[in-house]
Amino acid sequence: MENFTPTPRTQVKRLPDRGLYDRAEVYKILEQGFLCHSGFMVEDQPFVIPTGYGRVDDQLYIHGSAASRMLRSLSGGIKMCLTVTLLDGLVLARSAFHHSMNYRSVVILGTATLVEDAAEKTKALLAISEQIIRGRWAEVRSPTEKELKATIVLRVPLLEVSAKVRTGMPHDDEEDYQLPIWAGVLPISQVPAAPLADPRNLPNLSVPESVRKYSR
Amino acid sequence: MENFTPTPRTQVKRLPDRGLYDRAEVYKILEQGFLCHSGFMVEDQPFVIPTGYGRVDDQLYIHGSAASRMLRSLSGGIKMCLTVTLLDGLVLARSAFHHSMNYRSVVILGTATLVEDAAEKTKALLAISEQIIRGRWAEVRSPTEKELKATIVLRVPLLEVSAKVRTGMPHDDEEDYQLPIWAGVLPISQVPAAPLADPRNLPNLSVPESVRKYSR
Repeated sequence: MENFTPTPRTQVKRLPDRGLYDRAEVYKILEQGFLCHSGFMVEDQPFVIPTGYGRVDDQLYIHGSAASRMLRSLSGGIKMCLTVTLLDGLVLARSAFHHSMNYRSVVILGTATLVEDAAEKTKALLAISEQIIRGRWAEVRSPTEKELKATIVLRVPLLEVSAKVRTGMPHDDEEDYQLPIWAGVLPISQVPAAPLADPRNLPNLSVPESVRKYSR
Repeated sequence: MENFTPTPRTQVKRLPDRGLYDRAEVYKILEQGFLCHSGFMVEDQPFVIPTGYGRVDDQLYIHGSAASRMLRSLSGGIKMCLTVTLLDGLVLARSAFHHSMNYRSVVILGTATLVEDAAEKTKALLAISEQIIRGRWAEVRSPTEKELKATIVLRVPLLEVSAKVRTGMPHDDEEDYQLPIWAGVLPISQVPAAPLADPRNLPNLSVPESVRKYSR
């Protein structure tokens, strides 16, 4: 598996020791998230829209809503940036200046193109669904041909990609370590609560495996 | 407090009943988040970078790292999109097609300009800090003049703004309600774990109020 080659556009410039181009590391971050923020231009104005994603080999797929506004300007491809951010904690330093966050993020630059092949589209939608909640796809009614047609799927090749990771304790100025100020990290994570059943569920349905076993 | 007026660029087009332009509602969403994804262009390529934010009246402020790459092209202002997304849950329908997410998001379109006035800069940094963890600023060493100079703060006026909110149960096709498939919502939220003290803390420092009382 070849690693990503930093380009002038993906070379991490600020705090470059936080930059990563290792393909396995990037895929691990993508594996753990399921929401990205997609950026694109419409008539000189940038837009950033949250949307689900899924990876198949070295292609990232997004679908539906993100595309609707942008697709008006899509013809043969649209330049995009897809960013996945996993927040891991607040970094609480002794000085206001050195406060930070622990996070893992991936920034993907590329050109998004429309997926038109039905088999590729289905595979992409399955990947997006599995990314959000593994095993759910197999439990529910599959998409009809009409639904597939109504769904827009875009493909972005994973070519120009970088990750940025911060972990660990604050880095204070050396003299500030003598201050009687508590410093540390407040870990933060996205956790599920107990599932809420739809009041319209048929009687005696138990919570399915995909939901019971949900974790990231 | 005047509400936002939808423009052709902020008019929510897909599922327009999810669109909101109520200023109080928008501010409530901004109040609960603390990370935004900022989108901007560098030489024809969109970039999306996660960054903290703070609101003072009808200005949103972002700082530091987000600005470094983009500031190379900043002269008198740069067109940006700032998007704040709060994920509330996975919406698990009876059909793959009707799966969705519950979320609250705010999209801000505008032109970012550099904050040069020292008083405004300090106020903005305080707002960003309070947004991330209320009360922390007062517990720690304040920024020096040198630190303030090294910090880049950008201002984006809250003028062209829309929110989008989805809540509640899945909306399945009427005939699918007869399927013996469990449907519902899996609530998801960002929660803090127990704080981790910096091993270099002076002895006998107790966890401060900002950390003990942290909640969103």
